[in-house]
Amino acid sequence: MSNVLSIVVVEEDRDRALTIVDSLRDAGEFEIHVIGTRTGLARQIKAREPDVVLIDITNPSRDMLEELALASGPMERPVAMFVDRSDDGLSDAAIEAGVSAYVVDGLQPARLKPILDAAITRFRMFQRMRTELAETKRALEERKVIDRAKGMVMKARGVSEDEAYAILRKAAMDQNKRVAEVAAALVTAAGLLS
Amino acid sequence: MSNVLSIVVVEEDRDRALTIVDSLRDAGEFEIHVIGTRTGLARQIKAREPDVVLIDITNPSRDMLEELALASGPMERPVAMFVDRSDDGLSDAAIEAGVSAYVVDGLQPARLKPILDAAITRFRMFQRMRTELAETKRALEERKVIDRAKGMVMKARGVSEDEAYAILRKAAMDQNKRVAEVAAALVTAAGLLS
Repeated sequence: MSNVLSIVVVEEDRDRALTIVDSLRDAGEFEIHVIGTRTGLARQIKAREPDVVLIDITNPSRDMLEELALASGPMERPVAMFVDRSDDGLSDAAIEAGVSAYVVDGLQPARLKPILDAAITRFRMFQRMRTELAETKRALEERKVIDRAKGMVMKARGVSEDEAYAILRKAAMDQNKRVAEVAAALVTAAGLLS
Repeated sequence: MSNVLSIVVVEEDRDRALTIVDSLRDAGEFEIHVIGTRTGLARQIKAREPDVVLIDITNPSRDMLEELALASGPMERPVAMFVDRSDDGLSDAAIEAGVSAYVVDGLQPARLKPILDAAITRFRMFQRMRTELAETKRALEERKVIDRAKGMVMKARGVSEDEAYAILRKAAMDQNKRVAEVAAALVTAAGLLS
């Protein structure tokens, strides 16, 4: 990420696109790229790797909203969605789809910068939590496998828990692998042999 | 939670408070309670147990913003914060403090309902993730304790892993406790005795 924020603006209407670009230029220094067609949107956005995606929809249907939210990759980057008006439940759908900002009637120059900033912060916060959750789940899974492998070694060799772990750790060091990998291999092998 | 959303409005300025209440009445059916003084704010909000808190600050300093965010209990309920203007970095501070919506210059009747809806959805989504993370962390901790206890039983009684777990589970059933509790008691006791 360079110091200048790169923004992809998704807007099919050429006049509105120009207005948005003008608003962004008023709001700060950005590297702006407009995508005018929704065909292959996911691929187009991915190719750009923008810091943030700004989607403008005049009058969204639920299907369109979910399709655009998904295509914009809301787990990979902050997505701010602007709509002119919104039916009940649509903001729910947008937020559940992972959109970092869902703004009704808010495409005014003075409001753009704080909305984009907030979308980025919210995305990072969510990303931190997702990472922590994934790591904790992985630690739990690894622990289960290591403990199964440890139990097997304890039983097979008649050693204590600490000794069994030391055996696994030594095997891991010898093979330049992580203890969890060696344990997983042992559990798999034991499954094949029994 | 009844069907009518209960909202606590935190607003020191009486005229602005009336304007906000009018805007809310235009936006939908709510049970509204205005808190006009920030003294004992946390206690006042807690006593009301509102579905959502709406905080209006004309021109926030970072200290004031963080203090109000904290007092409003953003981990217990959705908090929507409205400011007239915002310096750089203040939206970051608000979002990091857990505020579900941080809105610059957005206190217009037509925008209130979607903002409150979005704040509630975002809060629930965040809450779901927090719960899942807490449960996964607890599962990991319990697993660690159960496995230590299991190792102790295996060594002391010369039994297999499965047998050791069966022994712990039987003890738990006999005492009408969870396996993790019995395991924790065993690990603590062993620590006292060795």
